[in-house]
Parts: sequence; C-alpha cells; structure tokens
Amino acid sequence: MYCSGEISEDEAMAAIEGLRIEMIDGMARIDTGRSVRCGMPEVVLAEGKEPGAFARIMLAQVKASGRCIATRVSPEHIEALQPLLPPEVRLEHREAARAIVLSTGEGPDPRGGTVAILTAGTSDIPVAEEAKLIAEEMGCEVRTAYDVGVAGIHRLFSALRDLIPADVFIVAAGREGTLPAIVAGLVDRPVIGVPVSTGYGYMGAGEAALASMLQACSVLAVVNIDAGFTAGAFAAQIAHGGRRV
Amino acid sequence: MYCSGEISEDEAMAAIEGLRIEMIDGMARIDTGRSVRCGMPEVVLAEGKEPGAFARIMLAQVKASGRCIATRVSPEHIEALQPLLPPEVRLEHREAARAIVLSTGEGPDPRGGTVAILTAGTSDIPVAEEAKLIAEEMGCEVRTAYDVGVAGIHRLFSALRDLIPADVFIVAAGREGTLPAIVAGLVDRPVIGVPVSTGYGYMGAGEAALASMLQACSVLAVVNIDAGFTAGAFAAQIAHGGRRV
Amino acid sequence: MYCSGEISEDEAMAAIEGLRIEMIDGMARIDTGRSVRCGMPEVVLAEGKEPGAFARIMLAQVKASGRCIATRVSPEHIEALQPLLPPEVRLEHREAARAIVLSTGEGPDPRGGTVAILTAGTSDIPVAEEAKLIAEEMGCEVRTAYDVGVAGIHRLFSALRDLIPADVFIVAAGREGTLPAIVAGLVDRPVIGVPVSTGYGYMGAGEAALASMLQACSVLAVVNIDAGFTAGAFAAQIAHGGRRV
Amino acid sequence: MYCSGEISEDEAMAAIEGLRIEMIDGMARIDTGRSVRCGMPEVVLAEGKEPGAFARIMLAQVKASGRCIATRVSPEHIEALQPLLPPEVRLEHREAARAIVLSTGEGPDPRGGTVAILTAGTSDIPVAEEAKLIAEEMGCEVRTAYDVGVAGIHRLFSALRDLIPADVFIVAAGREGTLPAIVAGLVDRPVIGVPVSTGYGYMGAGEAALASMLQACSVLAVVNIDAGFTAGAFAAQIAHGGRRV
Amino acid sequence: MYCSGEISEDEAMAAIEGLRIEMIDGMARIDTGRSVRCGMPEVVLAEGKEPGAFARIMLAQVKASGRCIATRVSPEHIEALQPLLPPEVRLEHREAARAIVLSTGEGPDPRGGTVAILTAGTSDIPVAEEAKLIAEEMGCEVRTAYDVGVAGIHRLFSALRDLIPADVFIVAAGREGTLPAIVAGLVDRPVIGVPVSTGYGYMGAGEAALASMLQACSVLAVVNIDAGFTAGAFAAQIAHGGRRV
Amino acid sequence: MYCSGEISEDEAMAAIEGLRIEMIDGMARIDTGRSVRCGMPEVVLAEGKEPGAFARIMLAQVKASGRCIATRVSPEHIEALQPLLPPEVRLEHREAARAIVLSTGEGPDPRGGTVAILTAGTSDIPVAEEAKLIAEEMGCEVRTAYDVGVAGIHRLFSALRDLIPADVFIVAAGREGTLPAIVAGLVDRPVIGVPVSTGYGYMGAGEAALASMLQACSVLAVVNIDAGFTAGAFAAQIAHGGRRV
Amino acid sequence: MYCSGEISEDEAMAAIEGLRIEMIDGMARIDTGRSVRCGMPEVVLAEGKEPGAFARIMLAQVKASGRCIATRVSPEHIEALQPLLPPEVRLEHREAARAIVLSTGEGPDPRGGTVAILTAGTSDIPVAEEAKLIAEEMGCEVRTAYDVGVAGIHRLFSALRDLIPADVFIVAAGREGTLPAIVAGLVDRPVIGVPVSTGYGYMGAGEAALASMLQACSVLAVVNIDAGFTAGAFAAQIAHGGRRV
Amino acid sequence: MYCSGEISEDEAMAAIEGLRIEMIDGMARIDTGRSVRCGMPEVVLAEGKEPGAFARIMLAQVKASGRCIATRVSPEHIEALQPLLPPEVRLEHREAARAIVLSTGEGPDPRGGTVAILTAGTSDIPVAEEAKLIAEEMGCEVRTAYDVGVAGIHRLFSALRDLIPADVFIVAAGREGTLPAIVAGLVDRPVIGVPVSTGYGYMGAGEAALASMLQACSVLAVVNIDAGFTAGAFAAQIAHGGRRV
Repeated sequence: MYCSGEISEDEAMAAIEGLRIEMIDGMARIDTGRSVRCGMPEVVLAEGKEPGAFARIMLAQVKASGRCIATRVSPEHIEALQPLLPPEVRLEHREAARAIVLSTGEGPDPRGGTVAILTAGTSDIPVAEEAKLIAEEMGCEVRTAYDVGVAGIHRLFSALRDLIPADVFIVAAGREGTLPAIVAGLVDRPVIGVPVSTGYGYMGAGEAALASMLQACSVLAVVNIDAGFTAGAFAAQIAHGGRRV
Repeated sequence: MYCSGEISEDEAMAAIEGLRIEMIDGMARIDTGRSVRCGMPEVVLAEGKEPGAFARIMLAQVKASGRCIATRVSPEHIEALQPLLPPEVRLEHREAARAIVLSTGEGPDPRGGTVAILTAGTSDIPVAEEAKLIAEEMGCEVRTAYDVGVAGIHRLFSALRDLIPADVFIVAAGREGTLPAIVAGLVDRPVIGVPVSTGYGYMGAGEAALASMLQACSVLAVVNIDAGFTAGAFAAQIAHGGRRV
Repeated sequence: MYCSGEISEDEAMAAIEGLRIEMIDGMARIDTGRSVRCGMPEVVLAEGKEPGAFARIMLAQVKASGRCIATRVSPEHIEALQPLLPPEVRLEHREAARAIVLSTGEGPDPRGGTVAILTAGTSDIPVAEEAKLIAEEMGCEVRTAYDVGVAGIHRLFSALRDLIPADVFIVAAGREGTLPAIVAGLVDRPVIGVPVSTGYGYMGAGEAALASMLQACSVLAVVNIDAGFTAGAFAAQIAHGGRRV
Repeated sequence: MYCSGEISEDEAMAAIEGLRIEMIDGMARIDTGRSVRCGMPEVVLAEGKEPGAFARIMLAQVKASGRCIATRVSPEHIEALQPLLPPEVRLEHREAARAIVLSTGEGPDPRGGTVAILTAGTSDIPVAEEAKLIAEEMGCEVRTAYDVGVAGIHRLFSALRDLIPADVFIVAAGREGTLPAIVAGLVDRPVIGVPVSTGYGYMGAGEAALASMLQACSVLAVVNIDAGFTAGAFAAQIAHGGRRV
Repeated sequence: MYCSGEISEDEAMAAIEGLRIEMIDGMARIDTGRSVRCGMPEVVLAEGKEPGAFARIMLAQVKASGRCIATRVSPEHIEALQPLLPPEVRLEHREAARAIVLSTGEGPDPRGGTVAILTAGTSDIPVAEEAKLIAEEMGCEVRTAYDVGVAGIHRLFSALRDLIPADVFIVAAGREGTLPAIVAGLVDRPVIGVPVSTGYGYMGAGEAALASMLQACSVLAVVNIDAGFTAGAFAAQIAHGGRRV
Repeated sequence: MYCSGEISEDEAMAAIEGLRIEMIDGMARIDTGRSVRCGMPEVVLAEGKEPGAFARIMLAQVKASGRCIATRVSPEHIEALQPLLPPEVRLEHREAARAIVLSTGEGPDPRGGTVAILTAGTSDIPVAEEAKLIAEEMGCEVRTAYDVGVAGIHRLFSALRDLIPADVFIVAAGREGTLPAIVAGLVDRPVIGVPVSTGYGYMGAGEAALASMLQACSVLAVVNIDAGFTAGAFAAQIAHGGRRV
Repeated sequence: MYCSGEISEDEAMAAIEGLRIEMIDGMARIDTGRSVRCGMPEVVLAEGKEPGAFARIMLAQVKASGRCIATRVSPEHIEALQPLLPPEVRLEHREAARAIVLSTGEGPDPRGGTVAILTAGTSDIPVAEEAKLIAEEMGCEVRTAYDVGVAGIHRLFSALRDLIPADVFIVAAGREGTLPAIVAGLVDRPVIGVPVSTGYGYMGAGEAALASMLQACSVLAVVNIDAGFTAGAFAAQIAHGGRRV
Repeated sequence: MYCSGEISEDEAMAAIEGLRIEMIDGMARIDTGRSVRCGMPEVVLAEGKEPGAFARIMLAQVKASGRCIATRVSPEHIEALQPLLPPEVRLEHREAARAIVLSTGEGPDPRGGTVAILTAGTSDIPVAEEAKLIAEEMGCEVRTAYDVGVAGIHRLFSALRDLIPADVFIVAAGREGTLPAIVAGLVDRPVIGVPVSTGYGYMGAGEAALASMLQACSVLAVVNIDAGFTAGAFAAQIAHGGRRV
C-alpha cells in the first residue's frame, strides 16, 4: 500500500524458514530476557506508574532475570517496593541518577569499552547520571566531566584531555544545547547529544537544545529530551565494539 | 527497556512454533501480494516519485498481481508509463481521482457492502474520488453526495436520506472540517472524517480540519490530511463486515 | 459564501418536507435519549466538572434513560454523587477504566459483535479499559491483549492468534505509537489506533504517537489522544455490522 | 552567568598551557584540513549556494585536501563547476546520492569497519545513498537493503540476516518512521535512525518520523530529517572502532 | 523603515494641532476613567496577581471611578480585599462568572441593545457568564441559552427562536468549536465565537476550537481562548449601535 | 456523548413543529440564495479551483441570484469565464481587490451604515480592498485610510479624525499586527482586526499578527489571516444595525 | 481593560501640553523624514511588492529625503525602477546585500562608531551584507569577518583579535546558530545574534538558530530570522553611543 | 563539514600563538571570575536547583568573587542558604526582583551609563526589577516607568519625557507585547524588548509577545521570554559605551 513490493511464493517460504532457524538459534534466547539478547539490562520507567503496580513489575523482573533497574523513581515508588522484597534481592538507590537497582547476584559483567560523559551545567547532571548507570550496567567503564559549559572553553579543553581515550562521548546540555556540537568538532569518536529540559521561555523545555543539536554542523546523533537511559545504552553498544558476548 | 515484560523459554518456543504454523497457514499466502491477504489492491503513491522509477514499479506490480493503482498521478508519470505497457495491460485514467488503474484482467470482485461518501465543498471532491476508487477496487458499492456543506443544512438532510442504507460513511471536509461531526451525530453507522487541505491562513493546510475532527463530540475516527486512499480502504474493510474472502 | 451552491425553491420545500417526515419517523425518537437513536449509552466526562454539578447531571441522566456512564472520575466526584443516589440506582465503579456506571435496570442489550483491544505497554491500559467499558455497554463482546509492544514481536503474533476472529481491533499505544500500524499490516479487519499520552520529551504527550499513526503506511484510522471512549464506541458501531436495532 | 563556576588563576594557567601543548601536538594538525583531524572528508552542501560561489569553494577545497564531496547538487551546480576543473581533478557524479566527488588522487583509505544501511521504502533511497557515499569515503565497507518496510516483516528478517555482521546500522524511513525502532529491537549493534521527508499531510515533511524515532522504546539515536551525510559520518566513526588513524 | 512614508512639515503641524484640539474636546475626557471614554467598565484580571497587590488596585479603581470589576477571582483574592473595603463600597460576588463587582453607587446605565449568548456545553458556561456580566455592566440586556450543542440540532433551533431579536450573538464552544459557525449560518446578525479550553488531547486547550472558528465558512469573528471579557465588551459595542453616550 | 442532555418527547415535537413553521416563514426563503437570507452576496473563492469548474460555478450563481462575486481571482480564471458569459451578464474586474463581480442588474441596495477600513502598510491593501468590496456589495458606505502604520502615530490620529463617524472599523495589519489594538484603544466603536501574511521569518506568514491581535489588551475581534471577505461581511452586519431588510 | 489605570484631568492636560511642546521641539522634526529623527535611512522592503508600486514608492522617498534604500530587491524591481529615475538620482546596486541605494547627494554623514559583523558560514553573508549596508548608511565604520564558524575555533579567535575594538558585534548564523553565544562569551561589548534561514529539516528555516540564541547562557539579544536590516540599524544605534546628532 | 574552510599550517600556528598571548594578557584574567572579564556579576538561576546544592554553589561563588546574585529565588532556597553564611557575607533580599545578593564588600563600582526600564502592565514588574538589579550591579544608573501600557498613550509620552536622557531602553511587555515597538518608534536610542509570560489562551505564555517583537517594523532587539537578567546585562553593556574597565 503506498509502499509497493512483491516477492515470489518461493522466496517467501525461504525467508520464513530462515526466520524460524534464526529464531531457534538466536532470537529464542532473547526471550528469557532482553539482557541475554542485547546485553542490556531490564529497565522500568517508574514515572507515571502507580507505586503498587510498579512494585509488582519490578519484583517479577528481578525474579526473572536477576537484575532490574528503575529510572525516575519517587520516594513513593521505593516505599511501595521495599516491604515486598525477599531477602535475597538487594536494592541499591542511586540518588544522583534518580534510579534504583534490584539484583540477586553479582554486578554486571565487565564487557569493556569506555564511555565519556560531559554536561554543560549542573542541572544536566541527573540525566548524565542516568546514562552513566546504564552504561555501567552494560559493563562499560564510565568517565565523567560535569559543568564544562561553553562559558569557560578552556575548562572544556582540559576536561577533554582526560577523556580522550574514550570510545564514545555522551554530552548532555539544556538551554541552547551547544556543547555537544563543540565536542563533536574536537574529537574523532562518536558524540551523542542529549537535550535536557532545563531552559525556560521560548522552547525552553529542551526543544531549543534538541533543535540546535539536530541542526549542528558537526557530526552528532541525538536522543529524546532527558533520555539518559537511551544515551547510555546506545553509547554502551558503541563502546562494546567488537566485544560481542 | 522502559517497557518491561518477560516470558519463560517454554512460552517463547510455543509462541514461535505457533507463529510458524500461522505463517504457513496464513501469512505465507500474504506474500504473493497484499491483495490476497487483505483484499486490498496494490497502490502506489506517484507524488514525489521520479517518473521513470514510477513506471518501472507500476509495471512490476501489475505483472505480479494483475492489477495496480497509482494515486496523485501527474501527466509526466503517465507519459513515462504509457510507452512501456505491454498490450495485455489496460490503463484507465480516473481524472477526478487523480489516479490510474493498470489491469490485465477483470475488474475487482464484488465482495459487497456499501460505502457512502460525502464532501462539504467542491474542492474536497478529488480526495473523495480517491476514496471512492479504492473502495470500488475493494469490491464495494459506493454512493456519493458532494458539496453538502453545513451552510445549507437541509441539503445535508436530503442527501443523508438517500445514503442511509450505507454500511459506513466517509466525510471529506476542508477549512473548519465540521461536516463529519454533524453527520456522525445523525447516523448510527461508523463515520470516517477526512481532513482536506483546502483552507488558507491559520492552520489552513488541513490542520484545523484535523484538529476539529479529533476533538469532535460525536463518535468519529479520522485519517491523515488528504488521505483518500486510507479512508476508502478502511471504509471497505468495515463494509465487508462478515463477508470475508 | 466561499462555498457556492443554490437550489430552487421547489427543491428546498421538498427537502424540508422530507426532513419533517424523517423527523417524525426518526429523529423525534432520538430525543428521548441518544441511546435510542445510536445504540449508544449516555456518557459524561467527569474531568473538569465541579463535583456538585457533576452529581446533578449524572442523576438527571440516569433518571431519564435508566443508565449512565461517567469517565475520568476522581474520588471527589464519587463522593459528591453517592449521597444523592436513590435506592433504585446502582453505582458500579470500574477502577481500571477510571469510570463509573449508574443504572436502574439490567445491563446493556447484547447486540453482538466482537471487539479486540490491544495495548503496547502497561501504561496504555486505562485508556484501553475505557474503550472496553463503552464497547461492552454497547452490547459487544470484548477480548483484550495488553502489553504486547513491539519489543517482543512473537508475543504480538501469539496474542493476535487469539483475537483474530474479532470484527474490529482497537490498538492503544503511547510514545512512538508503532503498534497499531503493525497490527494493521497483519490483519484484514479494521484497526483503530488510539494515541496515549505516556511518552516524555519531544511530542511526548501523545503527539508523536498521533503523528506516526496518521502517517502509517498500513490502513488505519485514529481517534484523539487518550480517547478511549471514542475508540470503544466507534469499534462497537463497526462490530454491530448489519445487526441494527 | 546563570551557569556558575570558578577556577583559581593557577588552574587556569595550567589549563591554558595544557591546551597549548595539546594544540601543537594535536589540534594544529587539524587545521590542515578536517580530513586529517577526524578522518572525515570535506563535504559541501550545494543546496542553497549560488552555482558560481559553489564552484569556487569546491575548487579551493579539492586543491587543499585532494578530495572533496558535494551533496544535494543540481545540474546548475555541475555546469558551473565543470569548466573550471583543472585536468588533474576527477569529477565523479553519484546520481543516486545527488552528490559529486572531486579528487586528484586515489580513493579513500580503507580504514575498515562495516556499515549496514536499510530503507523502509524506495523514496528513502537518495538519503540512504548519501549516507553510503560518506561512509565509503571514510573507508568503510557498506552493505544495503532497500525497501524492506514494515509491511512485509519477513522481508525485513531475511534482509537483516545478510547484514547482521555489520558494526552499525543506518535505517532511513519517512512517513511514520517505524522501521528503525523495529530493527533496533532485533539487533544488538547501534542503530541510527534517519527521518526522511517523504510523507504528506500532518507532520508529513519528516516530523512524524523524527518524533516517532525520538520516542522509540528501543535504543536508537537519530539525526536531522534527510541528513544522510550526518548518518553516514556518524556510522563510520562507530565502525572505525579501535582502528584509529 | 521597511514601511515607508513621509509628510510635509506643514501637514505634520496641522495634524498635531488637530490632535491637540481633538484631545481637549474628546480624549482628555477619557483620562478620568476609561468608562467615560468607551462606555466600558474598569476591569482587572485577578488571575496571576498577588492578592495584596490585587486588593490595592481594586480599591484605587473603585475610588476613582465608582465601579470596578475583577475577573478570574480566587477566594484568596476576595479574602485579601474584604477587610480593606470602606463601608460605602459594595462587593457583589458573581460566582458563575468567577468575578466580583465593587461599586459605590447605582448599577450601570441602561444604554440599550440586546446581546444573545449561547454555549455548546455546560463547561463553557463560566466563560459565557463572564461575557454576560461585562455586557450587562455596559448597559445591555442579555439573553442566554446554554448547552445547545450540535448533538441536538433541534434544541438549537428552538433556542435561536427565542434569541432572534438580539442585536448580536456570542457563542462559546470548546473541543471542536463548531457551534458558532452553525449559528452564523442561521442568523443575519453578527456572531462572535469564543473558543473555550475544555477539550483534551490534540490541541485540546482551545486551539482546535480557535482554528475551526477562524477557518469557518460562515461569517464569524473570534476572540482569544476563554476571553469572555473581550467577547462581552465587543458585543456590547455592537449592541449599542447608534446609541452613543 | 460527553455532552449530556435530554428532553421530553413533547418538548421535542414542539420544537420540531416550531422549526417547521420557522422554516416555511423564514428559512425556505433562504434557499433561493443566501443574499435573501443574510443580506449577503454569493461569493466564490477562486483560489485553488480549476478554471473551468470555476467558470461553471460562477455562471450558475449569477443566473440564480443575479449577482455573484469571486475573490482571489487569477488571469486564468477570468480567461475561462469570459467566453461563457451571456450578454446580459456584466463582469467588473476589481484589480486592487483581486476580485470580479458578475451581475445582471443594478448594483447592491444601499442598506446604510458606514464601515471604516485602515491598513498599517501598503502591502495590506489588497486584503483591505477585498473587505471594502464585500461591505459595499452589502450596501454599506466605506471610507478608507491606508498605510497609517504605527511608525507615524500622528498620521493615525489625523486619519481617525476623518473616520470617526463610522459604525465599525476594520484594521488590516501584517508583521506584528499592532495597529488594530491601538485603534481599539482610541475609538468606542467595534474594531475588527485582520492579520495579513506580509511578514517574514518567525511566524511571519501572519501568525505573529494573529497572535498579537488575540492577546490584545484592548477590545478587539479577529478573523482568519488574509480574510478580507469575512471582515467585510462581518463589518457590514454590524453597520446594518437596526436596518434589517 | 484588564490593565487598569487612571489619571486626574489635570495630569492629563499637563501630559498633553508636554506632548505638544515635545512635538514642536522634537517630534515635528521627525515628520520631515525618519532619517532626521532617528538618524536612520528610509528603507523599503522590495520583496512582496509589485514592481510598479515599488518603483513609485522609491521615487517618492528619494525625492522627499534625498536618499533611500531598498532591500531584497529582484531584477524585476530594478527593471521597473530604472526608466523612471530622473538624472539627478544615482542608483547603486549592492549585489552582495541584495539591495539598492538611491541618492541625490552625498553619502551618509560619518557619525562614528564601529560595528563588527561575523558570519558562521558563507550562506549567512547576504544577511550580513544587508546589516553592513544599513550600518554604513547610518554613518558607522564596519569591519567584517565571514565564515568563522565554530568548526575551527582558532579561526574565530584570530578574527576576534582584529575586531575587538568594535563598539558592538553582529553575528549571523544559520542551522544551529551557535556562534553568537560563543562570541558573547568572549567579548565584553554587546553582541546581536541574527538567525539565518540556511538549515534544512527540523526547524531548519532559521527557527533552530532563533531558539538556541534566545536560550543562550551568555548575554545576547536577537532579531528576527534573516533580519539584517534590523541588526544593522540596532547596532548603529549602539555604536553612535553619546554621539547624538 | 558542510561548512568548508581550510588554512595553512603556518597560519594556524600564528593564530594559536596569538591566542596564547591574548590568553595571558587577557583571558587568563577572566578565569578569576567573570566579573573581571566582562564587568558582569556572577548570577545563579535558583529556579530548578535543589536548595542544598543551590546554597553550596552560592557560597563558593561569593567566596571566590566577593559578590554573587541569585534570581528566581524561592523561600526554600533562602532557608537553605542562611544558616551556612559566614558573618562577613551580607545577604540582601530584593523581593520585587525575586532575587538575592550576597556580598562581602562594597556595592558595585559605578561604571556609569543610564538604563531606562518601562513595563506595559503591573504584571511585568518582576521581570523589569530583575533587569534593574543586574544593570545596577553592573554599575549603571537605572530609571523606571512601570505600567505605561498602550491604553493610555499620553501616559507613555509623559513617561518617556523623563527617561529620554537614558543611553538605552528596556521595555517589558506581556500579552501582545506592543509597547517595545512603539517606544522604538519614538526614541533614537537602542530599545530592548522583553516578552513576559503574562497572557493566557493562544500563545499566551509569552510567545505572542515574542513574535510581535520579532516582527516589529521599528528597530528592536529581543531576549528570551521573562529573561530580565539578559536584558539588564545587555543594556548595561550598551550603557557602558566607551567606559571600559
């Protein structure tokens, strides 16, 4: 419909057969938990979920995969969750990232790769910390340099010097969102921009930052406004490089 | 990821097995052409396609499925297509719908069901005609009443009287897009609103009509601005009712 | 004005005469309650109504038609309503749908037809439940499959297998709103997309989902963001098919 | 200002000194051409540039760095450029990518890494070809699978099977822009979404695709609408992985 | 500047002289209070004003002109005001209009003219009542017909019959905002549309209603969303007709 | 639905009966042409209409009602129309208004009332002339003062002095659209703002003017961007005042 | 109205008297031409004006004030103007600025002050040249540094060193519009940002640049998209400083 | 990339050397505090900052530079700060500006220059007071005239008479934001418009004011909505004129 295309019956059958094999060899494993398939942890967005429902989902997740993260967690969410936790489940509260980690066993496997995370201002830190948590959970080393906004460009240079060996850069910035483009003009590794909703006035809820990152002259990819989780997971995928499970 | 869920390995395998069977029984048939699966014709959106590429796609389609429609066709598209057509392919030009139909055999199977199409003004007619063509290609009877805008409400009443036996109503309207909501308040069959880009000024490219249809108090579903094709196909699906292939 | 048209005086008189008869035969019946005319229940949107006024409207409605529904109900609304209810009125609280049903007699007439309702995630469930309530009140059977988001496509296939005999599908999805288009590509019955306001960031209040449903390649009609009521009533109209009152 | 921070004079001096060294060791080299610094070719956006000015810029670039690309090139641009070219400069016209390559010497260094590029429809191909050209110019191997839109999901599966060894995926999609999220749900390598301006009606100039990619549940980064260049260069940076110059 | 124009010195002087005379004869009188100039009451928008500051402004106004209205008043505003009122100032609370009237003397002069006010639903009534208060304060007779929405079109006809002698119609409507255009198609007096912010979802805060009123085929002027005050004052200006002070 | 309401069967019948009488006495007359009902001429928007179709509509209109106007007319529209005109039809081309008038008899009845029309700049004149034409066709006297933009405020004062006896003011303004609010602050008659699409850059297609008119502190009603027709007809309705047909 | 205020009759008269005197002393002089009042040239925006009308306006202006500028001039405008020019009027065509200057006498008075103008890319130059022309016409010295985009930050530093003695900086930038904020972070003189419509895709017509300039952390004021004229005149007002006429 | 440019190695080195010297002579001084570099105070935006973090940042700032301002301060911010303050730090609460000033020594150096600040209404005063505080902290004299909205144009004239010796004007206005353009048409000094978020309805959160200021015919620069700080600092930069530190 409006997107043409056709295929012979033979081809169709072959494709499906291929799919089936592929599923048994590969995708079926996925279904025991996304962490097996993509090397990604299970992550639940707490915001907007009723605390009781949230607690039940978290419990089910940690039982199924041994490890589970929740982001944008409020005190009410934690209160609803805590009494339900069996003794073998450990709850770790990462306040700076507004997140919690439930786990029954060891920490994440160190798959390797290094992710650098920068923020333009101090208000961008919670989003950066969410990205950091996810990248660490995916087995990466993370180095950070916060509050290196454009205002003091020499501070940026000195911060970059420490971070340069990283495989990939995440740069979180609100208001005009300029920093990611500048970093991308200075390093030769992939740079991911995260617009942060810390402005005010015209397009101040992160839209100005999003727009300026999308229009940037330098080479830059972006994620949704405040999407620390996506940035962290995407960066970890890059940092893993050839190091597949 | 942000959308939790887990499933046991057994369940996963069962699901996949089920899928495989389903595919052999059902979806594989799909792949010989969408017209088999959904009772829908192959439709190509000519607009924005380079005439040469357009002609090649159309030829491939009509050879594969014996029947193919193109919408939003310009004279350049037809010129590029005509010399390539083998003698057994018939080209029908539906000017009012800005469409062409290629076919090698009979017309569409009369699957039954009646679709009523109304327009608020005369400028909405091309979109209505596109919907009409698709619904007819899907085997429905179509009745139309054009230019029955709100201005003369008695004209609407008299038009509706003729159309009332229809299984479903399509109402195309530009500018403020009021007519679909009014029709939906008067009949007890499903009414599909099609916003048309015939206004000017503030939100005049169909957005005002879209917004007013989405906000309508009466029960109404909508399709994209100017999307005659979608409206016609959706209406035909409703009109088919129990009459499955 | 700007929409031309004229009609002879004779035609005008005939039309009006026709209208008058139509009104006596048909529309007058309407006025004893919309439920008679369209097979639809009386539904009051509680949100934004002062609790006292809300209670008075509900009472008047249930007395007039014997049955009345309120959606998006807060505890304050119920508190204001409960002391006013005469003994013969039964109040049913559907928490999952954030709705209440007032009735003096039997449940809705089983007019027949089956509506399938799917959601992409768990946050879409309240909107789905509102649609379910309305479709049931209009006499349809409803089957549901919640949380079958794109992430696990095999879960979708297995869910669809159970739902395939349905006359019509409602698919509620927030964030990117992809699921309705995918379902519409797999089944040959009408699919209604309901965008849900469960995202965040750029166009996160349902607009991204609305836009992607309107632009979908597959055949799909949509309703307003979070409009469970409209989706349910529209689906019931389709499911009724030839089964007119 | 509104972004606090201070630093001692000593620290400042050290930072500047560090910067200076860094510049001599590193950034100064940059200035002989971006291709040295970032392993990226010089690329000029022809669109919107006056043909004469465009020709002069291209000549200067190719003389300085031996290789230069122009995207979104019109026949007028090429006409203005051709008479000015000295014999040692070769002009290659990549029509599918709407681009030209000027060079005086060999092709790009094979730095390694594989980039997979998919498109949902045929209209997305020019953007995909622009990405392909850039990635190849940056020394990557590129594999493509075009027109594998959601409609026929098995076609996607069979296409993915061939592409799975890639280091990174670019997925270009217009209209509702669903494909990138689906691919990202199936592979464990980074996926870059490119919204394409091939829709119509509401948010049809690529905005719907952009919004749905940003809201996607699966892990995905995006670039600007139609930004084939950025997607290609970003993907190449990922594909290079540890293979620094 | 970008808007050219020039005038001789003589002309300029004459114009200024004329202005001066005009001012003495006419505009100077204005300055003792707007109510003298335009036959309009002093009106203060309470919303967004600190209660203490609000109370001081109201007191100053009523002392200066003997009569003063405040709209969008909260209980806090009234609490802050009441203890400050001298005995000769009467406070009238118009709850339905969310307004108060302070006065030291008689009610407004009956300047004549009749304003008809309709609303589509019950949620539009507060905005309608604000308009009613202002029109009455400006000396007009006001007739109302509330909740005559499109759903029951015969109810509209019967309401209009009672209102037809009015000099001007105000029609307030939220959601799709259809009613004003329909009324304007039925009467030959000026109709003013007031969009009301009672919808939800896409453009639900009154924008859909505003857009559909601006695009209306029938002859209609509009005011800002929820702007009951402006609608009432504008209608009164029309209703006054030749009856100047 | 979502807008409750009920009515007894008796009331319904009475209302319908009333309606019927009203229709015979009143509305039936309407149907011989809107000019009878509302004192408004038949007006056809030429823009966007195919020239041939346009010509046929115009002919039908002028035959039915003896007088017909077309706005936004291109040379192609006039060329298509001219050969079809019978000798008794006179075509008048109003270039400044981009309009034509077809008539078989006398000019419009002088119903009385005076409309003043101002523009801020010279680019606003075509919209103003369209308003002027309509108001004159509806039997009003029209006085104009063009290019009296804010820049030279004394020019405005001197212009207003000549126009002050008018019953109503139309003020057309592009760019920031300030003039209508200023005029409304100086006169005690109704002022209608017409936003004009003469700006550039941010919201330059009339949206900035529309927004500033809707937000104006002074009492002002607005019509759609460039809607000279609506402004003229609305003003004439006001100017007619008690002078009903 | 909604903005209260009153004033005694005495105060009013005094104010008016003051105004009159002020007018005689000051504003009356204005009326012989804006260039006298504000030290600004008469400027006509050619774009959107019919060539004949444009030519007449230009002639009138140059006769009245001896000097007149037109911006955004097309060849058609110049063709219409040239034959009408009397011998004493000189026409100067500034191609880079898309402008013409008509004059009968000397060039502009050198009032003093220095304006620095930077652009990020080459596509921003026409807007910069328009600003330059206006600032020079207002008697300022102008220094420029074009194409100093962020990419090569050392180029910016070296450019700034030459420009630092300027009284004010204009920085024109399209796409992400970052450069003005960076310059504002480096100099202690006022910096004016001019967004340029040279991007593409999401907010690519200058909106992204506008938004990022408005959100900038550093101290920056902005003008409309592409508004070279406004930037130039505003900068000249600053550069004049104490040097009043 | 997409913004070409190259430079010889020699040039690059020279530029960097120049930069280095410049840094030692100039920029290094910057780093002891922005107040040294730009004559600007350190300003912290309290809004959106956690009170504890806010307090720590303020303390660090005042210790480093002896003087520090916070804007948009809530009582919670002050409560968190007060107990931490050492005796030598003085806290001044400027309620009207919603700001506090911390200082250890004298007030700001009187650098000279006069800034005039006007507001259209009383709701615009907090934004104006924020601008005033900053300009005073930067050593300027500030004169204000509040609530001189368009309604009473003579009040504006009398206010301007007192302010005319100012070097620069800040005009804050909400709703339609007309006042800055009017002031800019009357004075020959730079005028800075500040849109204020005091409207309601369509674009009522300051966007209408922003748009009308950007589109203004008169010469005007603008800052972000509610950006009192930016307006004050920008105005002070202008007022300083030649008076460099």
